[in-house]
Amino acid sequence: MPRERLVVIGGNAAGMSAASQARRRRPDLEIIVLEKGIHVSYAACALPYYVAKYFDDIGAAVARSAETFRDKLKIDLRLNSEVLEIDPGVRRVRVKGAAPGAGGGTGESPREYWEPFDNLLIATGAVPIRPPVPGLESQGVYGLSTPDDGVVLRRALETQKPRRAVVVGGGYIGLEMVEALLSHGLQVAVVDMLPQVMGTLDADMAALVAEALQGLGVDLHLGEALRGFEAEGGRLIAVATDKAALPADVAVLGLGIRPNTALARAAGIPLGERGAVRVDDTLRTQVAGIWAAGDCAESFHLVSRKPVSIALGTVANKQGRVAGINLAGGRARFPGVVGTAVTRVFETEIARTGLQEREAQALGLDYVSARIESRTRAGYYPGAGAITVKVLAEKGAGRLLGGQIVGAPGSAKRIDPLAVALQAGLAVEDVVNLDLGYAPPFSGVWDPVLIAARQVLRLL
Amino acid sequence: MPRERLVVIGGNAAGMSAASQARRRRPDLEIIVLEKGIHVSYAACALPYYVAKYFDDIGAAVARSAETFRDKLKIDLRLNSEVLEIDPGVRRVRVKGAAPGAGGGTGESPREYWEPFDNLLIATGAVPIRPPVPGLESQGVYGLSTPDDGVVLRRALETQKPRRAVVVGGGYIGLEMVEALLSHGLQVAVVDMLPQVMGTLDADMAALVAEALQGLGVDLHLGEALRGFEAEGGRLIAVATDKAALPADVAVLGLGIRPNTALARAAGIPLGERGAVRVDDTLRTQVAGIWAAGDCAESFHLVSRKPVSIALGTVANKQGRVAGINLAGGRARFPGVVGTAVTRVFETEIARTGLQEREAQALGLDYVSARIESRTRAGYYPGAGAITVKVLAEKGAGRLLGGQIVGAPGSAKRIDPLAVALQAGLAVEDVVNLDLGYAPPFSGVWDPVLIAARQVLRLL
Repeated sequence: MPRERLVVIGGNAAGMSAASQARRRRPDLEIIVLEKGIHVSYAACALPYYVAKYFDDIGAAVARSAETFRDKLKIDLRLNSEVLEIDPGVRRVRVKGAAPGAGGGTGESPREYWEPFDNLLIATGAVPIRPPVPGLESQGVYGLSTPDDGVVLRRALETQKPRRAVVVGGGYIGLEMVEALLSHGLQVAVVDMLPQVMGTLDADMAALVAEALQGLGVDLHLGEALRGFEAEGGRLIAVATDKAALPADVAVLGLGIRPNTALARAAGIPLGERGAVRVDDTLRTQVAGIWAAGDCAESFHLVSRKPVSIALGTVANKQGRVAGINLAGGRARFPGVVGTAVTRVFETEIARTGLQEREAQALGLDYVSARIESRTRAGYYPGAGAITVKVLAEKGAGRLLGGQIVGAPGSAKRIDPLAVALQAGLAVEDVVNLDLGYAPPFSGVWDPVLIAARQVLRLL
Repeated sequence: MPRERLVVIGGNAAGMSAASQARRRRPDLEIIVLEKGIHVSYAACALPYYVAKYFDDIGAAVARSAETFRDKLKIDLRLNSEVLEIDPGVRRVRVKGAAPGAGGGTGESPREYWEPFDNLLIATGAVPIRPPVPGLESQGVYGLSTPDDGVVLRRALETQKPRRAVVVGGGYIGLEMVEALLSHGLQVAVVDMLPQVMGTLDADMAALVAEALQGLGVDLHLGEALRGFEAEGGRLIAVATDKAALPADVAVLGLGIRPNTALARAAGIPLGERGAVRVDDTLRTQVAGIWAAGDCAESFHLVSRKPVSIALGTVANKQGRVAGINLAGGRARFPGVVGTAVTRVFETEIARTGLQEREAQALGLDYVSARIESRTRAGYYPGAGAITVKVLAEKGAGRLLGGQIVGAPGSAKRIDPLAVALQAGLAVEDVVNLDLGYAPPFSGVWDPVLIAARQVLRLL
């Protein structure tokens, strides 16, 4: 009798987490991972910090090596192996790549073959959004989604000594790229269609981030639409918006990503409203034996109670773990997310969780919000920095809806207790009484998030 | 008709929070605060850091000044006014102090008078535990509970240039005093009866703290009982334990505190098992019209489901707030605590929440625990330090029971999500899926507390 076979498409966070979990529980299972690139299990979120020269070995951003998966976990990991088609009826995938068992090394001519499966996990991740504008292929225009992208961009910054950079997109990746480019001594401008940076923050909180960016000398072009990249002799010379032409030696795309669902869609596997593969809380798709996890799959938002598409390594790892346990016959659930995200630009830390005002409005929720300023440590303690906390709550029962934080070092992870409170469905009155850690080096006696909760409670 | 009158005994965190809240809601209420000392609303937890010379103005540790309470909040705050007796029958207290309305200034001869009340809040705080050993009154033996204590000790350290110090007690205050004394360049020894420092941590986690202390050159005398303070000419020369005589120019008592309940007990107001005034979740005692809050009052432990006595500024402030709202005719509840506490010794941060092993055993709980080592940031990110997280969970349903953390800067406040999870009664499986903030400068993709939760989940 042939061994039961799990095929995983995609060798990154979700795929490799699932494969590892499945192996841990089912030593007998045949596990094949098909990865179209040459890297496995890398942290894409590390790339801006690699470009910023905060560390030098891009390999350090790999959680586990291909050898570990192959040798220790006995996973048949095939690099340079692109899945071209999923055939749900016959339960097989069509693969273009080196011959199975050849280890995916380069030098062999790729061929196409069918690989049958009993269970299939789609972990195809996300693809960067590329704007449909002229000049995108000019030299000097960079994206940043693979380790190779990071190496290429960093080398260009180090060897070509560009002077002026434009970052297209003022979200997480955009701001992280601002820090990286400033670290190389460049003049940096940011272009975003929205009238604010960090669209996942409310405008008042985003204004604090914009202030910090301007304090770093960053030129903000908000509410401006990208029109194209102007080149001379194929080399970027300016980024054009509907309002300005920004001279630039380098442009970096930071427009975010969208779920990579082409294979799933072509195979008739249902997608959700947000364009990600629809899954239940066990990570099963609506086609028996086919699963999905990571950036390509939906999550359930525990505050809005609606499906969302969230591309974050944390979620991908958690979904991969749950999928892997279930694929191995265990029982695990991924309850969902609350929309937590954190980042920073040098000394300014940024965090959010739950719903922002725009989202609460779109859901028709009757809410109140409060924004407070406090200090990261007791006021008299050295190094106490400013922290601004905003909290949203639903009128009536006073359910906590969301929180946002902008502040000095020590601010970002203050979002975590609010994230847990959201996940547990706590009311603001419960939040006020949370037993958070206090000592003068870490907080005032009323933690800033509790002060914000007290403030919003008064408005209910 | 005379105005309704609230009398508060004690002008510190709980008393002043309650008075402020009551005033905010009831402009008409007559509010009298009787404080036996000359300070109001000060942060006792600031004192070790003042002694350590991290800030110079002891007044900075006062949340609000006496003038603010008097002028802005129209609170009749009487300093140097000691309550000698509570008369619950006639609803009055006997006070020794300056004449009412005289502002409690010094220079007036104290007299005794009765002050009637409609409602009484007992916020008498805690008293430091003083060991019943010879030599306690020697010059060079210091306690640290009031701002004056801090000023006296710091001045002694600065002017007398002592060389050797012994800290009696290896708990929170003891360790904070170790840091203060090391900051003055002293050789420091710690004496504790327990076989470990930090009795609120499990032995394995406390061992990490002991290691850090030894790395700082601190001489640990654990499992040794204090026998007395040896003096020559009234001046301390050594601290004697049952095993050693430790030469010392300075000794600091850090044996903790106990609820200050003499007045309540004498008035027949019921105390709880832990010696604190018994209160319900509205902060009412079992005598109508008499309330208690802060270090002198009980809290309910939400994990053990038993009353506890916890002396922390955070709890005192929260209880004071709830008492004040209720005293003003509002409705608020203080649900309880989960036993969160954090501190640090220089670069070693320490945190705990919920039950430790000893407590779980005492409750007869069937539990498992896991201890993991991770990094405070993504491993490749500069400044990533070691962090050890231990998590306890109950077998069966897998209820989270507690967590402990020892690690590099950035570790202590990682306890907060676990504290919230405990407060919300989450199971470990829920904890694994918490949507905590992640970016490489702040955490690995699996936050250390989630790694610990995953580990303990495997043992359930």
